[in-house]
Parts: sequence; structure tokens; C-alpha cells
Amino acid sequence: MNALEKLFTRIVQRININLREQEFDAGPYVWDLIPKSQMTKFYAFYGISPDHPLNLQFRHSGLAGSYFLGKIQVTNSLLYKTDVRGDELKKKDDHFQFGKFEIPVSKDEEIVIEDSAFVKTLIHNYSHDPETLEKFFIKDTISTHYANIHGSPSDGCFLGPFSTVDLTTMRDSVIGTFSYVQAGEISHLNVDPGTVWVNSPHSFNFLYRFPLEKLKKYIHFEAGKQPEGILMDFVEDRKQDFQRVFDVVNIDPPANIPATASLDRYAVVNSVVEIGENVLVSQRAYLENSVLGKGANAQENCFIINSWLEGNNVTAHGAKIIEADMGADVFVGFNSFLRGQADSRLTIGSECIVMPHTIIDITAPLTVPPGHLIWGLIQNKDDLKTNSMPLSELAAVETAFFRGSMFFEGSGSDFVSAFKGRIHHILEANGAFYNKDANTGQGHAQRNQNMSFNTIQPYPRGDQEGLFPTILIQP
Amino acid sequence: MNALEKLFTRIVQRININLREQEFDAGPYVWDLIPKSQMTKFYAFYGISPDHPLNLQFRHSGLAGSYFLGKIQVTNSLLYKTDVRGDELKKKDDHFQFGKFEIPVSKDEEIVIEDSAFVKTLIHNYSHDPETLEKFFIKDTISTHYANIHGSPSDGCFLGPFSTVDLTTMRDSVIGTFSYVQAGEISHLNVDPGTVWVNSPHSFNFLYRFPLEKLKKYIHFEAGKQPEGILMDFVEDRKQDFQRVFDVVNIDPPANIPATASLDRYAVVNSVVEIGENVLVSQRAYLENSVLGKGANAQENCFIINSWLEGNNVTAHGAKIIEADMGADVFVGFNSFLRGQADSRLTIGSECIVMPHTIIDITAPLTVPPGHLIWGLIQNKDDLKTNSMPLSELAAVETAFFRGSMFFEGSGSDFVSAFKGRIHHILEANGAFYNKDANTGQGHAQRNQNMSFNTIQPYPRGDQEGLFPTILIQP
Repeated sequence: MNALEKLFTRIVQRININLREQEFDAGPYVWDLIPKSQMTKFYAFYGISPDHPLNLQFRHSGLAGSYFLGKIQVTNSLLYKTDVRGDELKKKDDHFQFGKFEIPVSKDEEIVIEDSAFVKTLIHNYSHDPETLEKFFIKDTISTHYANIHGSPSDGCFLGPFSTVDLTTMRDSVIGTFSYVQAGEISHLNVDPGTVWVNSPHSFNFLYRFPLEKLKKYIHFEAGKQPEGILMDFVEDRKQDFQRVFDVVNIDPPANIPATASLDRYAVVNSVVEIGENVLVSQRAYLENSVLGKGANAQENCFIINSWLEGNNVTAHGAKIIEADMGADVFVGFNSFLRGQADSRLTIGSECIVMPHTIIDITAPLTVPPGHLIWGLIQNKDDLKTNSMPLSELAAVETAFFRGSMFFEGSGSDFVSAFKGRIHHILEANGAFYNKDANTGQGHAQRNQNMSFNTIQPYPRGDQEGLFPTILIQP
Repeated sequence: MNALEKLFTRIVQRININLREQEFDAGPYVWDLIPKSQMTKFYAFYGISPDHPLNLQFRHSGLAGSYFLGKIQVTNSLLYKTDVRGDELKKKDDHFQFGKFEIPVSKDEEIVIEDSAFVKTLIHNYSHDPETLEKFFIKDTISTHYANIHGSPSDGCFLGPFSTVDLTTMRDSVIGTFSYVQAGEISHLNVDPGTVWVNSPHSFNFLYRFPLEKLKKYIHFEAGKQPEGILMDFVEDRKQDFQRVFDVVNIDPPANIPATASLDRYAVVNSVVEIGENVLVSQRAYLENSVLGKGANAQENCFIINSWLEGNNVTAHGAKIIEADMGADVFVGFNSFLRGQADSRLTIGSECIVMPHTIIDITAPLTVPPGHLIWGLIQNKDDLKTNSMPLSELAAVETAFFRGSMFFEGSGSDFVSAFKGRIHHILEANGAFYNKDANTGQGHAQRNQNMSFNTIQPYPRGDQEGLFPTILIQP
């Protein structure tokens, strides 16, 4: 057994110890997911820019195909084609407002990854846990394909494919396939596959469960197998296009990108794509024959194909938009899959909020009126009736109600304003409101321009094959 | 003035202070040689392999286009397209034999570069100075195009283009254009352009001076201008071919490389090239339509074009061989320029030693018989008579003699055996004598196979533009 295999075995054992109460064994799920022979094949890389102070520390880890930006420590871990961005962390002397507490940040926050393994996982944002402001820790954690760990410290957890944990500190928990959790703090929980859960204690609670038999067609994961279904096939079918952008050292950007927009050099752009002012297209985004209006942002791992986005749209991490027309200010949450057809387009009215992990998959044209909340699985007009409601109607709710497989309780108005506030913040942070003349409102779209990328590779042979040397990058 | 310009100004000032006695001003020679705008354009890179323990430390430096392997520290320096290899350094507990002294090496040696600027310079090998076994220092030094600093610690020196300092510790000295110095220790010396000087105190002394009017056509350097001449044009004309190999992330090696040979992935191979067993082709070597027999080695920055090398040939750093047939065991020293023509080939017999910095440039066929020493400028048969002699004849010399512009004194036999010993050592270190079946005699040719290369880039914008972040790479 070489050093890489020993490390992997050790990580699996640690997760299993953390999850012993639930008698969960991560081994059968992950033995074949991290292809040991592939760990030497793909370079990892990190970004250099004056706008993102660096502190990268890699020790005794495999990093194949992974990307890093900002302040990140990785020790005794395997990060396979994973994307970790430590460029949105809190800074020394920031103040973090949590309820009535205004907590000073005593030193620059760092993402600290230890004894963990990730497959194609996105780790972003900052720790929203008021208990640990300076350290966004992820330890003894295994995460599988296209999962998102977003502002969520984790200790002893397993995340299924296409799952998202958002602004939530998690301990000793299993997050099921395609589940979305935003709940502040969870512990010793086993979240079933296909759960969409947004909980703000003392304020509101949103809970939806996908019908598992129907979800299976889209994504399904069982021990000893690779994840399967339309979502996997969809991304696998487009792998070659990404290979192309990783195989060359420099790519000239298309000529028609406005000076206020940024298109990451590791994004894929197929056929004619129109990019408006203040647009942010992030790493590993995939654009094909589409229009992105002013201030729209296409986040990591999203796909936008044959679609028209009016402006100030958020297409969150891992969301897919195909054959669709999106009004202004539409938000599409994490890992959503919105698929119209060439002859049956999907139209979503302005200011709609598409909940994270929503699947719209239609064979007849479908139109969502403006200002609606949309969630769950929608395959036709009837599904839409059950799985959507005007935001104004939701804002009036003060107690609780069921609608189809969705349950809501608490303050609808708090829920709507929390969501709207967050969308505004995302647009702001991404530079959607940048004013060129006044040079105000700079965000990622402006700051991510003209970044340098450095590649790193592991030992190509010997006992340490697949593991990287110790690498420290500091300002 | 941004940080990069400040650093450059500071380096020039430091060199001028060291060279104040000679009233040498490096400024006019180098202001335009390190193109500040280019310092962000080229990535630097380093090799990762289990056979070369790493300790790379880069601080407050520009490294555009440079390469690193092994144990190297760079601080407050500008290394433009420079190649530094710290993979041949002495190791802790080695013993260094110097005359009657057997000196223990107390810790792993490192190359330590401070307050220096290099343009396209090669820095290789280990410090041959018995006074400083653990630190191969290069400080307050400026070196220009295609110079070689080979096993030569330096403090306060300026090296002209295509100059070589070999196994010599130098202080407060100026090495002229195309000069070769191998003299153990030099201080406060101004070596004129076109000097070839090999001095072993108490043993022998070899001194040749190129006719400057004739050398001018090949290489010429004056204040305020770029270096000029055939040597510069020759390498500049082939720049595009190197650009090609640097623009892609991976290159598949040609199918016909024997398993015991290695062809660096950053070498250029044009049209059909035949590579024998145990051959080493180093980084930035250039091969075109040639045959390299068993155990031949093509070192960094060498060019071999339309030529046939019989086997166990050494083509040293920066040597050029064009339209030539080389017998077995021929040695061609640093920066030599050997140019036959398609209809006037150059033939060099087996076991010849072509002195470093030899120029053979012919328009009629020319044959050098086996076992000769060759030096200086040779353009025809008459020149060859003046600038060559049988090694056996030289070995018999015990006093002193002039031949043309060459002066020799001391023990010819010591000179010949020192050279032969060194050639044998080079072949051995490069793996020319590797025995596949017994797995003995492994050298660079075998160990450099399957190396990983990591790229690094500077800050692309802002005050630090062109400077790299602090980068530490350790095992």
C-alpha cells in the first residue's frame, strides 16, 4: 500500500468513527470514487492577484485537478477536482453581526481542511458560525460529486452527490444525495436524499422532500457504484469541453467582453455568447449560445445553454439552465436543473426565486409568472401550481401551511426578505452594481480580471506518487 | 516607480558598489535587457520528482520564464528566463576531497541567490569552493544572455553575454563577453571579452584570446544596446519553436525514445531525430534532424541540427552543432559554435576535446582527426592547424609553449587527464553508462524521466506587478 492509499484508508476510518452512532460506513461509497491512478494525472492550480491576499499551505495531500484562491490550509487530505475559494473570508478587525452580538474578528479567517476527502466538491464563502469566526474548519469529512460546502464548517460528515450545505455548521451528520440544508447548526443528523430544508430558528422553516422514485431518474447513488442519472450524464457529456481549456497554458479571451465584466479563463464558451456589463463568469462555468444581461452572474459549475438571461440574474453554483428565457433579477439556486426544449421553452418571469435544488424538466412550454417562489420537481403546469407561489402571498404567511410535499411554518415575510437580502448581497459582491464612471461597487467581476494561475503537480513516481510536496504560498 | 523597478535599481546599485574599484557601471548594459513589461508575461516553473529532494524558497523576486529544480533560495532578485538547477548539490555527510583535505559536508548544500539579476543564464552544479561547501552563494551579481554560472559562487560580479564561469569562486570581477574562466578563485579581475582561460594553480595554465575584430561578427555587446551577432541571431531565430513547447500543458513524447533515455518535455524536437539508449536530452535543448548515439548527452540550451553523434558525446550547456559528424566520445564544451554547411560538413574524430567557447565556422569541408584538442576561432584548414593539437602531444608538454593566440604552461599530462576525468564524470552523472540489466550506473537520463512541472506566476497587476508571492516548496 503506497502513501496515497494509506492516507485514503485513514480518512475513511476517521469518518466512520465520527459516524459510528449512525452505523454509517463511507467505505463502499467512496473506494472507487477517488480513482487512485488518476491522482497523478491532473494538475492542481491556484490564482495570484493583488486583490486576494494569499496564504496557501498544502501538506501531505493529494490535490489532483483542484483549484485554490485566497487563504487555505490543506493537510492529510485528498481533494479530487475540487474547488476551494478562500477569497471571501472574514478579515482581521471585521465585525461579525450575529443577532444582537457584534463580534470582532481577531485575525484573518482561513479555510482549514484536515483528514478529509472530496470529489468535485465546491467549498466557498466564509464560516457563518459565530462560534468559530477565524477558522472555517472542514475535518474528518467526505464529500462526493458536485456537492457544495458553502460557508459551512464540518466535522465528521458525509455528503452525497449534488448535495449542498449552506451557512450551516455540521457535526457527525450524513447529508443525502441532492439534499439542500441551510439550518445554522446541525449535529448527529441523517438527512434523507432529496430533502430541501431551510431553517432559521425562531423565524421560519421551509421543508420539501422530492418524491424519491421520480428523483432517481435524475440522480441516484448507492454503495459500490458511481452516482447515476440525468444530472451525472449531463455533466459527464460536457467533460471534454473542459479538458480543452485545461490543456493549454493561455487562452485569449473572446474580443467582445466588456471591460467591466470578467470571464474566467477556465470557463467554457461554446458558439456565440453575449456577455453584458458587470457580468461575472466563474471558473468551470459552461456557456453555450446564450445571452447574459448586465450584472448577471454565472457561478462555478453552472451551465447556461441556449438561454437568454435579462440581467442581474444569479445562476448559483452547479445550477443548469437550458432552453430558457429568464427575466431580470431572477435567482436560480444551487444545483437546480432547469431544462426546457428547443420547441418547448421555459420562461421565468422577473424577480422570481428558484429555490436551490429545484428541477424543472418540461416537454411542453411553461411560463412562471414574475415574482414567484419555485421549488421541488416540476414537469408540467400542474406541478408548477403545486410547487410555486407568489412571493407576496408567501410574505403574508404568519403561521404554517402545507403545499404538496412542501411544509412552511413561521414568518413568510422574514423568509422572503432574508432571501431577497441575500440575493442582493450576492449581486453586490459579484460586482453587478459596479459603476464604471464613479468606480464604485467593485466586486468579483472587476477584481477577478487578469488573474494569474499557477499549476502544481504531485510526485509522479515512487512511494509518494499522487501526493504533493509541501507547498506554502504567502504574500 | 513600482516595486519591480525599485528592486532592479537596487540590484544595479549594489553591483556598482562592488565594482567601484573598476569604475564599472552595470546600468547602461542592463537597463533595457530585463524588459520590465515582460516580467509578467512568462510563467516560471519547477520540477517535482522523488529523486530530487526539494527546498525551493522564493521571496520578493521576479522569476519570469525561469526554471528550478532541487534546493534553491531566491531573495530580492530578478531571474529572467534563467535556469537554476540545485539537483547536483552536495549532501549532508558527503565528503569533499580538495587536495589533501577531506572535508565533511555538515548539511545539505543549497544555491542561495540574493540581490542579483540574470538574463537567460544557466546556474548549475555545486560549489567547488572548499571554503563554502554548504552554500553555493550568488549575490550582488548581474549576468546577461546565455551566460553560464557553473559550480561558481559569485559575489559582486558582472557577466557579459555568452560568458562562462566554471568551478571558480569570483568576487568583484567583470567577465567579458564570450569569455570562459575556470580558475578556482578570482577576485577584482576584469576579464577581457573573448578570453578562454583554464588555470589550475601549481599544475597548468591554458590561455587563449579571440581576435576581437573577428569575434565581433559572432557576438558583440556594448552599453545601451542588446547583444548582437551571429550567436544572438541564431538563438533568436529559434525562439518560436520554444514558445510552442511552453504554450501547452502536456506534450506526448515521441514514440521512439528508449526506456533508458530521457527527453525533457521542454526540449524542442524538429523533424526526425533518433535517440539512442542512455541518452539525456535536457530542458531547452534543441534537436533537429539528427542522430544521438548511445550515451550521448545534449545539455541545456544546446542546439544539434542536421548532425550525427556517434555515442557518449557531450554537448555541453549552450553548445551548437550544425551540419556535423561527431565520432564517439567527442566532448564539445560550453557555448561552442560548430557550424558546417550542407555541402561542407564538419567532421570531428572520436575522443576529440573541443574546448569551451570554440567557434568553428566553415565554408569548405573540414575534418578534425581523432584524439585532438581544438580551441579558439577556426574558419578553415589553416586555422585548424594553429588551433588544434593531438592530446598525446599536449600530454607530453612539461614546460610552456605558444601556438597562435594560445599560451600553455605547466603539465600537459595533468591538463589532459583533468579534462578526461571530468568528461568521464559528466557521462557517468548523466547516466551514459547505465546498465539496464544490472540496473547500475543510473544518472540524470534515467532519473529525469517522468518528472512533473509546476508553473508559477507573479502578481499580474498592482504595485507588486511582475514580482512573485513568497513561495516555499518542501518535501
